[in-house]
Amino acid sequence: MTSFATHRERFIAGTYSPRDLLETYLERIDARESEVRAFAALDAPAARRAADASAARYRQGAPLSAIDGMPVALKDIIETADFPTGFGSPIFAGRHGRRDSAAAYGLRRAGAVIIGKAVTTEFADAFPGPTRNPHDLTRTPGGSSSGSAAAVAAGMVPVALGSQVGGSILRPASFCGVVGFKPTFGALNRGGISDQFSQNCLGTLSANLADGWAVCHAIAAMVGGDPGFAPFTGGPVPAPARRPDALVVLETAGWAVADPAAIAAFEVFLARVSAAGIRLLNRRTSARVELLEAAQAEAGPVSQAINNWEKLWPLAELDHRRGDQISPKLHGEIAAGRSMTAEAYRILLHRRDEMRALLIALADEADACITLAAPGPAPLGIASTGNAIFNLPASALRTPAVSLPLLAVDGMPLGVQLIGYPQRDRELSGIAAFVADQAAG
Amino acid sequence: MTSFATHRERFIAGTYSPRDLLETYLERIDARESEVRAFAALDAPAARRAADASAARYRQGAPLSAIDGMPVALKDIIETADFPTGFGSPIFAGRHGRRDSAAAYGLRRAGAVIIGKAVTTEFADAFPGPTRNPHDLTRTPGGSSSGSAAAVAAGMVPVALGSQVGGSILRPASFCGVVGFKPTFGALNRGGISDQFSQNCLGTLSANLADGWAVCHAIAAMVGGDPGFAPFTGGPVPAPARRPDALVVLETAGWAVADPAAIAAFEVFLARVSAAGIRLLNRRTSARVELLEAAQAEAGPVSQAINNWEKLWPLAELDHRRGDQISPKLHGEIAAGRSMTAEAYRILLHRRDEMRALLIALADEADACITLAAPGPAPLGIASTGNAIFNLPASALRTPAVSLPLLAVDGMPLGVQLIGYPQRDRELSGIAAFVADQAAG
Repeated sequence: MTSFATHRERFIAGTYSPRDLLETYLERIDARESEVRAFAALDAPAARRAADASAARYRQGAPLSAIDGMPVALKDIIETADFPTGFGSPIFAGRHGRRDSAAAYGLRRAGAVIIGKAVTTEFADAFPGPTRNPHDLTRTPGGSSSGSAAAVAAGMVPVALGSQVGGSILRPASFCGVVGFKPTFGALNRGGISDQFSQNCLGTLSANLADGWAVCHAIAAMVGGDPGFAPFTGGPVPAPARRPDALVVLETAGWAVADPAAIAAFEVFLARVSAAGIRLLNRRTSARVELLEAAQAEAGPVSQAINNWEKLWPLAELDHRRGDQISPKLHGEIAAGRSMTAEAYRILLHRRDEMRALLIALADEADACITLAAPGPAPLGIASTGNAIFNLPASALRTPAVSLPLLAVDGMPLGVQLIGYPQRDRELSGIAAFVADQAAG
Repeated sequence: MTSFATHRERFIAGTYSPRDLLETYLERIDARESEVRAFAALDAPAARRAADASAARYRQGAPLSAIDGMPVALKDIIETADFPTGFGSPIFAGRHGRRDSAAAYGLRRAGAVIIGKAVTTEFADAFPGPTRNPHDLTRTPGGSSSGSAAAVAAGMVPVALGSQVGGSILRPASFCGVVGFKPTFGALNRGGISDQFSQNCLGTLSANLADGWAVCHAIAAMVGGDPGFAPFTGGPVPAPARRPDALVVLETAGWAVADPAAIAAFEVFLARVSAAGIRLLNRRTSARVELLEAAQAEAGPVSQAINNWEKLWPLAELDHRRGDQISPKLHGEIAAGRSMTAEAYRILLHRRDEMRALLIALADEADACITLAAPGPAPLGIASTGNAIFNLPASALRTPAVSLPLLAVDGMPLGVQLIGYPQRDRELSGIAAFVADQAAG
């Protein structure tokens, strides 16, 4: 895929325009949206007006940022003043907000062209929307950033914003064969999205890492990160490829349930990584890795319980008023949160912090961790969005992670996941570029 | 003042009811609200219905919590489904929200009787509302929790929720002669209030510490704290009085600008504290105190700059759309935030964390810090809400602090401020009780 930076050079040269670029994406939407159903809301005329305004800025030599003129879609938990924001819930279907969320406002200030809102599961939890996997319409695109991943995979948009509490960026990226990127927790301002879960992080789904990265940089420059947290530290473009000395091969709790064909494909890939001169550590060769593996085995239940407590508001309040329109699974999670105590929550936070300390303790032994991004290719059917088990560790650690579409099983894409250290997003990008080169090589 | 716990014993015994109690407060509102103007919205009939429902629960032997039947007011940045929430801004005057904020929902689940919304300054910043100081109507009640402090001081309500980014709980508490309490940062869920500044903390203004404390405990039990932070750890009631071994007398940047009569009154009080066998440290007797004083001298500009950056959303977005209805001072702060870089913000966060580390380093030398809660009594006029200079250190440190109405200057109240260590709110309450006894003794 041509990167946006390449298109942008042509915008500056005057040989191509943001409107020209937009039209290529709108054609893809026309061709595929009726079967993929990636969008909860679309507004092509408004996008054309925004692209024309961007084109005018380039003609005047005054683009607003490195992403001026870039078409983007927003997960439908991210409020906008123009589009309705439905949160994937019938309670809010068609509801118009009064303002742009921080991310939407930041994107507009940077000149991005917001094409539409991408389908999410119910409140970015488990209950699925209508989206189908562009690689095989009989399969799920994953969730909860379902429409974001599918829209990018179908070529409808180069970048879509998603969010991840458990596995909601990296899993759909893996299933749809696109790049998923979740920066260090707090890097992108979540103001005005529907939830504020303590593991939740905005991030990108994109055809290539550089495009998503540029979006992260622009949002942080315009509206910052979460209040009290360092805004995205990665710089305007990802680092050039850099060979890491050592990587931790992290099994996670996912190893036991992964598709044998997925593990086989991953091990073939690891052999290439090893052949490139990268030392691979694992739980059998490093006591510190074993400590991290043992702690991370609980990442799923710890995350789920933390997440349930954090549903005490606003979801429990909503459940009081509109419980008849909340899915049984989410209703059960809310009830589980109500049965917890504040003391239990404090202990869970402490356990989660301990996991993070065990990761950070590995920093002098290894440059990053590598594992699968999902237990296998996208499952058949759209009633479930698949298993987040490989994504929960990086979510609980609130550390940067990327899913790269480097593997294939059964003719479907499968992602390799790289997990970095907090605030070292830039370093992770250089490692990701090197690792990706091993697949191509 | 009779504590709510005492009233509650009579509710349980059946000799008094929440409705009886409510009527005593409604009478005070009738008598004084026209001159004090503490409320942005009031609904006596709805409060009577809520009090009657509480009375029915007591008759059935099934109160919902230790604050069931307690009349409370909410600062008007705290959204409710029933009252309008105006944020002290003409842009939102009369605007009805769609849901209860976390604190409002928690209070309702606990059975509290929400009487109304208390006046706030514009978006809890500096531009004042119409409220007057109940002790002298020609003076400010302080801000930004202006109506919350005035309502409690005028006996209109036993507890009101406030919030503090700079000095917005402790300063009005000092000016109005009530107890102000700001727990450790994150202790009370801020979901659904108008801002998410990284120093912002919900807390209470109350006639006595126990009543405010009970409200904090109930909110944390029902809806938790901020996502990712320990909910209020103080327990259901404050600790009994306990004599501290040593206190740090903290001058802060406020010393240089304080009213000489205020300093004189404070020093008389300190002599009683010392006579009670408490060792007093200060910047001249302790090198570590001097380090903290030197760092805290920057608490004001560091807080202000952090706070300006954090106005990039939602206030800057609002300023884009409705700038003509934003005060010149707030508009200037938003512009200052726009001129900052993400890198500058990261450095400021680091400096703020260093201040906190310097406070925590004192924990083995002293039990808490003691200082004035304001540079003097409430200034004349209501065009300014006074100077927060004595409150900024505890705000920037995100540590528990309490203002106790123990001093008087010019016939007006003045608060003594105690500053504790993070998560040690309970210990601070025991010290506060002991220190308060020295004034009474």
